[in-house]
Amino acid sequence: MATYLVSGAGRGLGLELVTQLLASSAVAKVFATTRGDPSSALQELVDAGKGRLIHVRLDPLDRSSVEAALPEVESHLDGQALDVVINNVGHMPMTRKALAQRMLDLTSTFQANVVSAHNITSVFLPLLERGGEKKVVNISTTLGSFDFAPRYVVFPVPAYKIAKAALNMLTLQYAQDLAGKGFIVFAISPGWVRTDLGGEQADLTVEQSASAVLKQVYDSDKGSNGKFYNIHVPGWEDNPGLNQYPGGVTPW
Amino acid sequence: MATYLVSGAGRGLGLELVTQLLASSAVAKVFATTRGDPSSALQELVDAGKGRLIHVRLDPLDRSSVEAALPEVESHLDGQALDVVINNVGHMPMTRKALAQRMLDLTSTFQANVVSAHNITSVFLPLLERGGEKKVVNISTTLGSFDFAPRYVVFPVPAYKIAKAALNMLTLQYAQDLAGKGFIVFAISPGWVRTDLGGEQADLTVEQSASAVLKQVYDSDKGSNGKFYNIHVPGWEDNPGLNQYPGGVTPW
Repeated sequence: MATYLVSGAGRGLGLELVTQLLASSAVAKVFATTRGDPSSALQELVDAGKGRLIHVRLDPLDRSSVEAALPEVESHLDGQALDVVINNVGHMPMTRKALAQRMLDLTSTFQANVVSAHNITSVFLPLLERGGEKKVVNISTTLGSFDFAPRYVVFPVPAYKIAKAALNMLTLQYAQDLAGKGFIVFAISPGWVRTDLGGEQADLTVEQSASAVLKQVYDSDKGSNGKFYNIHVPGWEDNPGLNQYPGGVTPW
Repeated sequence: MATYLVSGAGRGLGLELVTQLLASSAVAKVFATTRGDPSSALQELVDAGKGRLIHVRLDPLDRSSVEAALPEVESHLDGQALDVVINNVGHMPMTRKALAQRMLDLTSTFQANVVSAHNITSVFLPLLERGGEKKVVNISTTLGSFDFAPRYVVFPVPAYKIAKAALNMLTLQYAQDLAGKGFIVFAISPGWVRTDLGGEQADLTVEQSASAVLKQVYDSDKGSNGKFYNIHVPGWEDNPGLNQYPGGVTPW
């Protein structure tokens, strides 16, 4: 029976990750963080959750706000560990055409995608260290991959690509530092998902994406530390276009 | 006869790049930027330069400050283009041991190494577009390489590694966007250099590093766009340790 914390859980992928975690009998408790009040959808889950789902208000860009949430989470754990942290907060600003020189939001995009994961991981580390799972999952994207960059020229989100490349290196730094303590720190690309962030033209439903991400979270072991995964979505092998979601390790 | 702009030219690698550029008969003019007054070493070069070296005061983290410097540089060009920009500004904070969770300077390190290059490149782009060379050179490091990360576990500079991975992706984004206009945008690792940043234990003199960087700058052509180079330092092939400076393209 594991405990989870999911950041950015008010909507989109974060909300669906929480929904699917609650449906698993192997999950004891879920902490769902949002910056402000819970969305109505998240509040409904909290109300139906009978204490298994706890809403935590924290601003992941403000370290003192994350630190203030630590004792609150700890009190709900009753001495148990926090087993898994899923850093899901992200932000993807568009640039007119794919013009890097027009980026005006480089620092804020870095903070939303990288500093958020750093603040939450570092502050909650003492609770993770108590546990047997010790998993830190950073929601990244293949848009942040150097190898895939030629394929993604058409996507006009340079600041997001830069921030996710940085998130991938953050993941690798944590993985190296914490390997000796038995941690499993990895990045995973959730695919192109029909959420507010991904838009309506995206490949996958949020249910497909969350299910594939959680499969990798459940299946991960010591060998997963420091890896960058793609999700596996059954059926895409037969897609007339590219097989975008083959699962397994994907190039940085 | 080409014109150059070098950022962070008050000391270290930037100052030496300026020194060696001035020694080349193929260089018409060099703009050397610093945040404040020029260092005494830079001022000596300016005084001896008979108008070939112009000190420009700008804060690369403050976009409006970079924009304010544009007309000043333009006036010194007398209608000529700015041919080459070398984004050399950087900052490398140490963390006690290699502990990623202790980073408290992630945003400022990102700004110093990535936003600085973005501000200078984007603001001076109109002057670069006029020219025949159109080169943008980002001083990066193999410490920001995913492939080399296992080798560099011992270096306790996680924020720097993360920022330079992001700088490499910034380089690739600019390269993709500007390829159609004939630009040559690349990243280069200057090696581990005995400067204030690199420390006294480093491998190379600043003269060796600057010379190797400039050789790649001079030799680069359209095929260099979007590449990440290591420097070539003669003699290191025979080093009893690793051949750290083989030249050529290095993995992201």
